[in-house]
Amino acid sequence: MSVHSSIPRVDAVAKVTGQAKYTADLVPPNALYAKIVHATITNGLVKRIDGAQAQQVPGFVKLVTCFDAPKTLFPTPGHPWSVEKAHQDVCDRRLLDERVRLYGDNIAVVIARTPLAAAKAARLVRVEYEEYPPLLSPRQALLPGAGALHAQKPDNLLARSSFTVGEGTYADAVASEPDCVELVRTYDTQTVQHCHLELAQSMAYMEGDRIVVVSSTQIPHIIRRIIGQALSLPLGKIRVVKPYIGGGFGNKQDALVEPLAAWLTTLVGGRCVFLELTREETFTATRVRHAISFDIRALVRRDGTLVARKLTAYSSQGGYASHGHSIVANSAAVFKQLYHDQRVLEADALTVYTSLPTGGAMRGYGIPQIDFAAECMADDLCRMIGMDPVDFRLRNCTPEGYVDPHTGITFHSYGMRECLLKGREAFGWDEKRRAFQHQTGPKRRGVGMANFIYKTGVHPISLETAAARLTLNQDGSVMLQSGATEIGQGADTVLTQMAAEALGLSPERVHIVSTQDTDFTPFDLGAYASRQTYISGMAVKRAAEALRRRILDYAAGLLGREAQSLDIRGDAVVDASSGETLRSMTDLAMEAQYSLQNAAHLSAEYTYHCKDNTFSSGACFAQVEVDIPLCKVKIERILIVHDSGRLINPQLAAAQAHGGVSMGVGYALYEEMLFDGKGKPLNDNLLDYKLPTSMDSPDVETLFVELDDPTGPYGNKALGEPPAIPPAPAIRNAVLHATGVAVDSLPLSPQKLYEHFVKAGLMRDIAKEVDA
Amino acid sequence: MSVHSSIPRVDAVAKVTGQAKYTADLVPPNALYAKIVHATITNGLVKRIDGAQAQQVPGFVKLVTCFDAPKTLFPTPGHPWSVEKAHQDVCDRRLLDERVRLYGDNIAVVIARTPLAAAKAARLVRVEYEEYPPLLSPRQALLPGAGALHAQKPDNLLARSSFTVGEGTYADAVASEPDCVELVRTYDTQTVQHCHLELAQSMAYMEGDRIVVVSSTQIPHIIRRIIGQALSLPLGKIRVVKPYIGGGFGNKQDALVEPLAAWLTTLVGGRCVFLELTREETFTATRVRHAISFDIRALVRRDGTLVARKLTAYSSQGGYASHGHSIVANSAAVFKQLYHDQRVLEADALTVYTSLPTGGAMRGYGIPQIDFAAECMADDLCRMIGMDPVDFRLRNCTPEGYVDPHTGITFHSYGMRECLLKGREAFGWDEKRRAFQHQTGPKRRGVGMANFIYKTGVHPISLETAAARLTLNQDGSVMLQSGATEIGQGADTVLTQMAAEALGLSPERVHIVSTQDTDFTPFDLGAYASRQTYISGMAVKRAAEALRRRILDYAAGLLGREAQSLDIRGDAVVDASSGETLRSMTDLAMEAQYSLQNAAHLSAEYTYHCKDNTFSSGACFAQVEVDIPLCKVKIERILIVHDSGRLINPQLAAAQAHGGVSMGVGYALYEEMLFDGKGKPLNDNLLDYKLPTSMDSPDVETLFVELDDPTGPYGNKALGEPPAIPPAPAIRNAVLHATGVAVDSLPLSPQKLYEHFVKAGLMRDIAKEVDA
Repeated sequence: MSVHSSIPRVDAVAKVTGQAKYTADLVPPNALYAKIVHATITNGLVKRIDGAQAQQVPGFVKLVTCFDAPKTLFPTPGHPWSVEKAHQDVCDRRLLDERVRLYGDNIAVVIARTPLAAAKAARLVRVEYEEYPPLLSPRQALLPGAGALHAQKPDNLLARSSFTVGEGTYADAVASEPDCVELVRTYDTQTVQHCHLELAQSMAYMEGDRIVVVSSTQIPHIIRRIIGQALSLPLGKIRVVKPYIGGGFGNKQDALVEPLAAWLTTLVGGRCVFLELTREETFTATRVRHAISFDIRALVRRDGTLVARKLTAYSSQGGYASHGHSIVANSAAVFKQLYHDQRVLEADALTVYTSLPTGGAMRGYGIPQIDFAAECMADDLCRMIGMDPVDFRLRNCTPEGYVDPHTGITFHSYGMRECLLKGREAFGWDEKRRAFQHQTGPKRRGVGMANFIYKTGVHPISLETAAARLTLNQDGSVMLQSGATEIGQGADTVLTQMAAEALGLSPERVHIVSTQDTDFTPFDLGAYASRQTYISGMAVKRAAEALRRRILDYAAGLLGREAQSLDIRGDAVVDASSGETLRSMTDLAMEAQYSLQNAAHLSAEYTYHCKDNTFSSGACFAQVEVDIPLCKVKIERILIVHDSGRLINPQLAAAQAHGGVSMGVGYALYEEMLFDGKGKPLNDNLLDYKLPTSMDSPDVETLFVELDDPTGPYGNKALGEPPAIPPAPAIRNAVLHATGVAVDSLPLSPQKLYEHFVKAGLMRDIAKEVDA
Repeated sequence: MSVHSSIPRVDAVAKVTGQAKYTADLVPPNALYAKIVHATITNGLVKRIDGAQAQQVPGFVKLVTCFDAPKTLFPTPGHPWSVEKAHQDVCDRRLLDERVRLYGDNIAVVIARTPLAAAKAARLVRVEYEEYPPLLSPRQALLPGAGALHAQKPDNLLARSSFTVGEGTYADAVASEPDCVELVRTYDTQTVQHCHLELAQSMAYMEGDRIVVVSSTQIPHIIRRIIGQALSLPLGKIRVVKPYIGGGFGNKQDALVEPLAAWLTTLVGGRCVFLELTREETFTATRVRHAISFDIRALVRRDGTLVARKLTAYSSQGGYASHGHSIVANSAAVFKQLYHDQRVLEADALTVYTSLPTGGAMRGYGIPQIDFAAECMADDLCRMIGMDPVDFRLRNCTPEGYVDPHTGITFHSYGMRECLLKGREAFGWDEKRRAFQHQTGPKRRGVGMANFIYKTGVHPISLETAAARLTLNQDGSVMLQSGATEIGQGADTVLTQMAAEALGLSPERVHIVSTQDTDFTPFDLGAYASRQTYISGMAVKRAAEALRRRILDYAAGLLGREAQSLDIRGDAVVDASSGETLRSMTDLAMEAQYSLQNAAHLSAEYTYHCKDNTFSSGACFAQVEVDIPLCKVKIERILIVHDSGRLINPQLAAAQAHGGVSMGVGYALYEEMLFDGKGKPLNDNLLDYKLPTSMDSPDVETLFVELDDPTGPYGNKALGEPPAIPPAPAIRNAVLHATGVAVDSLPLSPQKLYEHFVKAGLMRDIAKEVDA
């Protein structure tokens, strides 16, 4: 079998030897370099820009400002487009804008002959502003008289959506079940950044009247459309190339610098312009994970049955719509799908513009936030009624056969219960839970857990399109072009395996093209929503099946046999019954390519419109040791159990889980973007922003429950994002178990734990003593 | 109509603005540079190579020699491969070889960090040789005891082919028609070089276990196969990319440096190695036009009827087989096809290895050589019997409906007679022919003419494969990928026109991809044999027709109509009867791409195996003024009349004719590679090799006879090579008319004319006087 086996990554050698070419590797020697001039206020208006000093810098070529930029508004998020107006993304972005909506907003660009000259000249651009008070939280931005960031949204409310599932209202439920216990709490998640290794960067140049943009993007075909919208150009005039890419985690599922780079080349006669953001710029001027504040009420019977819940979520959008309301809408949907309420669930989700970095897509897309809130809620409820957390989840998790009432998405396979049971067993949950009760002393241990669900792709909200093309090489190998983008996650490897499996060839015979180019590559929406193995994989499988049929039909003609009596095995056409080799693939391919009599076109292309969806699920178990005096949490053990369908490559699946859990640990304990009182970032660099290093990352244990999902190719379903979801609440719940302290916001930094421990009487208030 | 109209070249803007990227433009900043160490003897053996001094050069990385190179022999010519052994190209080339067969043969390579360091180190490599006497002509190389250049061919005869058409022998004909006039002469053609603007160059690097070669080649898919053969690698491991290319004229229809570059990168861990030849190296170590010597006997009745001919041709192959015997075999075939002999034609063609630069493909592929011989013969016969040259051709040219007895190629359309008549009229042939009789004085005028035929592509000798792929963009434009290579000739423009025509779109809506990449580009054999408009054009037409059908089927579904009732016009789907616009292509494309309900895959791919052929033909008319004392020929007027079927783009067709005639003028008057007595080139640079400049090129008049060929797309047939064929004999015949002097070899340089004019008594032997 080529699938369900751990072949080495197909891009491993190219990447570890430095042969893989990334965007910056492709910048030609005579390129020009662009540097963005960013706003140094958080909310206001640019009144005047003075480039006199900048122009004196040797190598200076051009200064373009917000006053030169087209007035066109365009959307930036990497969503499939919709032909229906109501489903189209919000257009609120200009290439450069005099209206400053966040610290670091783009207001001008310097083009110069060297990166240094560009940076130097950009620093010398003088800007005069009219400054307004910053709007630093959704609740503040919603206050009457806060002042609009975008004229189209006078109250700063980008969007709001509400739904009720069940009968009556939450208040009815409370009134009618007086014996229940009610929880009323607010859970807060912080702003974090993706911190992909390769920074946001694009180069653009022209060929005749066409613009070529080479960019580190997850979504080349979508970027092409967005550039067309931003520059008011028909998109046949635009070509987007995605080379190897060094991570994205959703940040590169947005048009970050591509439209700007595309515009800049048109201003310098089509010369190549390279625009690379620094780490600092990437923090402030690209995208972040939405900070969301969740007001939750939950009603539970003393036997642990969840009766009703009510959610109000405030999502801080930052300055621009980007992925906008989709994120918190996704939070609300998962809040609904994760647990079953006996009576009713009410949900209300608001997305609000704020004067902060723009929230966009980030691994998990709103689910790490809601999973923190929902799983804190679950353990807090358990504590109130004295119930075991795993038992609570087993009792209340959504039943098999669930069909989402709003989207129609069905649990085609659903391994939640199996994951919970397998994890409980493997982790030794029950013993540890008992063993760590009633601890005293400065170091205390605890175990906690959290579960999650996650759908795959965006059906039925948008159209899911994926495509692949396969051609037979003369040596009997095949070229595989997929529109899906390898961004580090291993997509190219699993797509190669699926093509090999469907064709009956060994994986070494499948050569996947790792670069996407909108001029050549079949249309596929790219890397987001953990869709590629599930959706693009199906396109590859079907294209490969089509090529296999063509090869067998061709072989049947050559051999004077019926195609049904033939098969491809061991890189040869064989008799399907006896397995006897009839023609090696190499000989067959040479004949097909070069024979005067028997030449034939053997290629296949397939576009898959995925019109279904399914849920992955799982649970995370963490054991921590909390050093109370030092306010530090040490993760002693962390286990994640996934139901991601059947695994195409178990080793890569485990690697995905390792990376995701590591991201979840950072979310739990270390990472947070900090701002001063005016909204200026305080830690927009990797020294001050505490991204966990390999020294901080625990060993991760992974287990899989391999249910065969009928809708995914070879039974697989989403895996890319899920592992990043449950670690934070699992760790938070383990700290709760160890210390009895329920922290309601992320991260569980030493500073925050100190405040909580003092409040809980676990330690003296040293700060007060020092102050005194 | 998109076809039969002179739209501007689609690549014009990119090329004149410098936006078009050529191979050298793509070399990355950290590339290594290779320099070949060439032999400084003409025939012999490398005994020892000493790199001690070379290694001292700062920046030196590696020296590899013929002693390190694999022993594998591979073929270099850009022919379609054959699955039949007998039709496969001769393998006689190693990457580096200790057996030196020509001055400048490749014996070692230096790799260094800069081009200068590589060049300096290469000069410091010391080589010891064992030297053999050079073989400077085919007749010498065939002498017993000459010594074999290749062990497989002890007599240096690479190949020989003979045929007879008609009854009996030439000797029988002479014996049986005693009243006839017989011509017995030898016509000689010289060695010339292509002199393409962009030099031979390739860069190669690795991605994992695959080798990527970016090269200035006419034939990327063929190069891929050759590299596989040279490196003994399955060709799925090889990727060849063809960027924009600055001319080739057939030289880049050979593997010149690609296999070597591919091998070099494997020796430096896959780092990019750039290998560019200088102009001097391009002259000596790439390919040249074969110098062929033709012994001709011809028998003609006094009424001008050609009775019988006998041809013996000796082709100087140079050191390696390359395109080898195909060239002179093609000469012999055209000698047969150009005229009809009443009784018999005997032909015998020999290709002989010599110690001279290797003969390869060059615009016309053996036909400029034979056309010089055949058309000199025709005028020399006319002079013997006092017949008008045009009348002679009208009487003896091959009749319509001709079917080649060996290949089965048919004149599907044949405009030779029309070209002769149209040219005679437009040129004022009869008046001038009379007016320039019996001149005296130092400057004399004359008119001459020559005709030609040329087939298209290589059917039925090899399999002709061409392919194209079209995809609909969301803006209603299409991407067109053709495997055919734009090398300056305008292929991309005419393919764009044909796709637009077949689709019913305006040409601005067709975006052709000018770069070929064997990983993406449908398999097409590339640019040679004037095949692309005729063969690749058909692939484009059929792929476009298939896409058109898909679009109309899709539109029919959307509109609830029958597809047959719809058409595409004015970039919209219209009612076929009324012409009423029903849906713009843009709206239709957006719907097809993004509609939740109606999304569809709209692309088409087609591989065309051309199993037919047809002949282009035409005639050239030249008027010269010969300055006898200065021995200089001035072309006062030159007209070429082509039957190339219906023209897809008349202006580009005229431009092709201009370029070809200019090349023919150089062949006639100026160009010749000169060698010293040891076979060392004397003029391997553009200062000493007299390529005509724009100052030397006459204004060219072009006329076309547009017969609609049933086998070509939109009625077209070969045009790329033909214009280079007839100018040399037309000019030679004009000099004959002006002076009475029949020069039997090319070029008609002042030195040669001086010798002839002295011999003919037209001028004093100044040289003798000076000597005395």
